[in-house]
Amino acid sequence: MNPKFGNIRIVLSRTSHPGNIGAAARAMKTMGFSRLYLVSPKLFPHPDATARSSGAEDILRMAQVCQSLDDALRGAALVVAVTARPRDLSHEVFDPREVGDIVLDEAGRGEVALVFGTEMSGLTTEEVGKCQIIATIPANPAYSSLNLAAAVQIMTYELHMALFEPEKTGGAPLDLATFEEIENFYQHFESTLVKIGFLDPQEPKRLMQRMRRLFARSRLEKTEVNILRGILRDLSAYSPGQE
Amino acid sequence: MNPKFGNIRIVLSRTSHPGNIGAAARAMKTMGFSRLYLVSPKLFPHPDATARSSGAEDILRMAQVCQSLDDALRGAALVVAVTARPRDLSHEVFDPREVGDIVLDEAGRGEVALVFGTEMSGLTTEEVGKCQIIATIPANPAYSSLNLAAAVQIMTYELHMALFEPEKTGGAPLDLATFEEIENFYQHFESTLVKIGFLDPQEPKRLMQRMRRLFARSRLEKTEVNILRGILRDLSAYSPGQE
Repeated sequence: MNPKFGNIRIVLSRTSHPGNIGAAARAMKTMGFSRLYLVSPKLFPHPDATARSSGAEDILRMAQVCQSLDDALRGAALVVAVTARPRDLSHEVFDPREVGDIVLDEAGRGEVALVFGTEMSGLTTEEVGKCQIIATIPANPAYSSLNLAAAVQIMTYELHMALFEPEKTGGAPLDLATFEEIENFYQHFESTLVKIGFLDPQEPKRLMQRMRRLFARSRLEKTEVNILRGILRDLSAYSPGQE
Repeated sequence: MNPKFGNIRIVLSRTSHPGNIGAAARAMKTMGFSRLYLVSPKLFPHPDATARSSGAEDILRMAQVCQSLDDALRGAALVVAVTARPRDLSHEVFDPREVGDIVLDEAGRGEVALVFGTEMSGLTTEEVGKCQIIATIPANPAYSSLNLAAAVQIMTYELHMALFEPEKTGGAPLDLATFEEIENFYQHFESTLVKIGFLDPQEPKRLMQRMRRLFARSRLEKTEVNILRGILRDLSAYSPGQE
């Protein structure tokens, strides 16, 4: 397996039909991927998963079953939500081809996760909130109902295509913060906003969602998270009387 | 349906599993295609085809069942063989992306057919002989066994991309803040950092430069600047004693 591909995990959240898990494993393997994470699958392991994996049983055997999306994203520096529907407060949206380049670039340095939601309703807003960018597969507006494994097939195909394209340049590499570092920052930020009276916990509206969207676009580096948390710390210690 | 897509037919030759016919119909419909030709399908119509088509039953109802590949190719000016394996006497071989451009170009003038073989052994040499070009989906050399519907999904996805590529996605348009609004925010931010003691004006180092780089990457929107300045304002008014 290509070392970049070894840094990429496919995360299926709350999949209903085990057959789709098997078909997704097969799709992954055809494109050279092996790391499958399953968040609270309805039925797994299951004979339907094995049957549809058709020679990719090794992927199913090695699959990590997780209790929460947070568990499945641990250690990931870039998290991509694959979703069909546009969101109100959307992140930056890319097509699979654009995502292929972004993901491969990051996979040269750290861990990347591609997250797929349920067959019926895709990812929840909360789940998308944990991702930095959105990948949307262009589809027929009158019928955009891609099968889950078909979506996995297209995304992994584009990654495969991107890998074998000539190297792109594109700016200084970012030393991205991990999922946990970023989540801890958001929590620290939120509690500080409550403390200074800017955020009313009884009526938070969509403030933190907006802030997540802003920082997701910039894809925070480790150093930046450290600086931002340093500011929040000094802020908590600050008293106007000290001026 | 786009008139070019109306000139493109998907031909499945001697398909063994009716479920794959249904899944292929679904894949086609998600990408805006409707013309399905079935050459001597083993079982069709069949409840498995209907079940897996999941909302694309109209494609199955309109499908043309043919006795021979010749029948299915009647009237086609360009015939593309989709095959995984390279051939002894190979035609010109293109990847799906290249084929997307070639097919769309031809579909502006006449009829095009994409031909897919059986699940187990693909197209015969004789069948490939009736085609003008070969499309090969790049895959893991150690496991290139794409599901039939997955192959249809990738090919139709590439056609869809080729047709709509000019209209790039690129995310919801951002309502970007102006240069002045951003500069005012930076000044406000900097003076606040000095006030809380995080930034020493005698030795500022490159802190603001780093913060500028972070926010530059995210390309701030007007609303976001307003929120950030609101936070800075509340911060200046904040006194820990008020807690």
